[in-house]
Amino acid sequence: MKRELNIGLEGIAIAESKITHVDGIKGELVYRGHWAGELARDKSFEEILHLVLFGSLPDAVQLKDVTQKLISLRALPSELKTVIRSMPKGVPYMAVLRSVLSLVTAPEGTEYPPTADQALSLIAMTPTILAYRYASVNGTEPVEPHASLGHVENYLYMLNGRALEAGLVRALSAYLILSMDHEINASTFTARVVVATQADLVSAICAAIGALIGPLHGGAPSKVDDLLDEIGVEERAEEVMRLKIERGDRLMGFGHRVYKTWDPRAAALKYVAQHNTEASKLLKLSLHVEEVAVRLLEQYKPGRNLYPNIEFWAAAVLRSVNVPKELYTPTFCCSRIVGWSAHVLEQSENNRLIRPTAIYTGAWPDHEQAR
Amino acid sequence: MKRELNIGLEGIAIAESKITHVDGIKGELVYRGHWAGELARDKSFEEILHLVLFGSLPDAVQLKDVTQKLISLRALPSELKTVIRSMPKGVPYMAVLRSVLSLVTAPEGTEYPPTADQALSLIAMTPTILAYRYASVNGTEPVEPHASLGHVENYLYMLNGRALEAGLVRALSAYLILSMDHEINASTFTARVVVATQADLVSAICAAIGALIGPLHGGAPSKVDDLLDEIGVEERAEEVMRLKIERGDRLMGFGHRVYKTWDPRAAALKYVAQHNTEASKLLKLSLHVEEVAVRLLEQYKPGRNLYPNIEFWAAAVLRSVNVPKELYTPTFCCSRIVGWSAHVLEQSENNRLIRPTAIYTGAWPDHEQAR
Repeated sequence: MKRELNIGLEGIAIAESKITHVDGIKGELVYRGHWAGELARDKSFEEILHLVLFGSLPDAVQLKDVTQKLISLRALPSELKTVIRSMPKGVPYMAVLRSVLSLVTAPEGTEYPPTADQALSLIAMTPTILAYRYASVNGTEPVEPHASLGHVENYLYMLNGRALEAGLVRALSAYLILSMDHEINASTFTARVVVATQADLVSAICAAIGALIGPLHGGAPSKVDDLLDEIGVEERAEEVMRLKIERGDRLMGFGHRVYKTWDPRAAALKYVAQHNTEASKLLKLSLHVEEVAVRLLEQYKPGRNLYPNIEFWAAAVLRSVNVPKELYTPTFCCSRIVGWSAHVLEQSENNRLIRPTAIYTGAWPDHEQAR
Repeated sequence: MKRELNIGLEGIAIAESKITHVDGIKGELVYRGHWAGELARDKSFEEILHLVLFGSLPDAVQLKDVTQKLISLRALPSELKTVIRSMPKGVPYMAVLRSVLSLVTAPEGTEYPPTADQALSLIAMTPTILAYRYASVNGTEPVEPHASLGHVENYLYMLNGRALEAGLVRALSAYLILSMDHEINASTFTARVVVATQADLVSAICAAIGALIGPLHGGAPSKVDDLLDEIGVEERAEEVMRLKIERGDRLMGFGHRVYKTWDPRAAALKYVAQHNTEASKLLKLSLHVEEVAVRLLEQYKPGRNLYPNIEFWAAAVLRSVNVPKELYTPTFCCSRIVGWSAHVLEQSENNRLIRPTAIYTGAWPDHEQAR
């Protein structure tokens, strides 16, 4: 058999996909025929979930339907609460989330082939698992989901114990919309490989969570957080960052492997931040830091095109809405699980085992095989 | 960017690998320079674990060392026992195993980069998790691991509450050795994709478990079990199978996607069964069924080369050693976790993100992007 070596699978398309188009050179991100950056400005999480998962923006009836389903599915069964409380304290949230989702037998079942209803169940439950665990670890009373709040508002409500103002909900919604899908990234690919064996949706999602744990993929938005913490107030931004650049340190949150121009996700989050500065001092600080950073980078590294990436704005938004640092990547999961689900459904429609090979370079036996 | 469509990744090698060579046309399976079929005849699980994971058959000191490590690592921490007991009753064993391993923070840590000691920890714990859960679900007293028994003997001891005779331990050891690795299958590929993001070994293993849940990969040895149950005694073998073939039913356990000749794993298990017929009536029955099936298939479907596959012998061995049906695929995990670990270690030595792409065939926006 002919075996062509391609270790990173560069340039190999493993699917024709109708979900997402990414072009890092042109700075384009399209979800099913719509510019993601525009959607993030004023659409709700539920609307874009419908777009990504079902293929079209919802009409009023569809929107009500998907919203109601998420509400009705987001309470945790008491047996899963027991499991969460029994887990050792030091376990990271990503592992907790994986361990709990792994046990889910949704009302609709979790058997292959995957369905959109199965996906809604897992999507609905994810923020509740995180908020419940957070309360459980910190010894506070867990806040039950609120039946009249949307998906994003409710997550913030469960974490903070109170509803946050509209500008902050907008900022988090925009971030979650913009991180819902990004074509065949490592975690989405993992999910597709798993479901290609005709494993269940739960198995695909749990596998994808593992890939997102890797810093080469899930990144480290908390390092951006450290930078913003160090700066603290607008007046110190230029001094702190100038010193870092002159010392040869990397400015966390700037530059991207794929996007060599403005990351359209960062651009959209900047837009949302600019229109909601009254909502949060932290958001306002981030805007200032970002503008100073871009100016300094252009001055010290001209032509390198180092623009803010999604991690910069992820950290900026997440800290402004009081999501604790240890929940940054798990919160990313709350949105990327939508993309994973859409890809798993698409993969299963025309499924085929994904089974590459290797070139054996090990030793050979010194004798013929005994039969 | 050029994007070549290859949905199943056929013919694409994602690695140069020193671990395993498979040739389905020639019927070859080689672990690091040794015919796997020969190793299965008389080597122990620990010896082949050392070969696959560390690259060479162990000398006496190395064998003692790896054996002692497995013994010392296989007890479950009490906090994980609590989690296992708290899990809902109906959850399948594969999900239980994934959820528990997902929480492991081994004594050696579970951080990237993966280490052989981390792997030994997970390998050692896997049978204990299964046996503990089995007792817990069935309301019997869990049997603690026995410090003077080898890895395979101890698994059977924990499941059955007593040590089994040497012929049965040999049969199970042979099966576990032969299923330790099989080059880049779907679960092994999943593990490599996950660790390529610099995620931890635990994440890679949990993801691989999900891929093994899929029937296109993990298969359905319990269907072979149904056939053997239906036959029951040697005298009925020909009648039952002849009727099935004439009705056009598939004979479960015969034929393979890759092996177009005798699967060397099936051949080796047949050899082991032939030399241990005194150990089990069920093993003797399986030998008879296999011989009749091959004869009938050659008679009814001449030239199709339908030989027994590993699933036939998996079922034959697992039932002969009293492993309950619901633990067939989880028991497969007890051995394949060795191969997953070896591949994860190999991947991490020269790591690169595995990031294919897709060809976007969805709709396009009807206007230019707003900036």
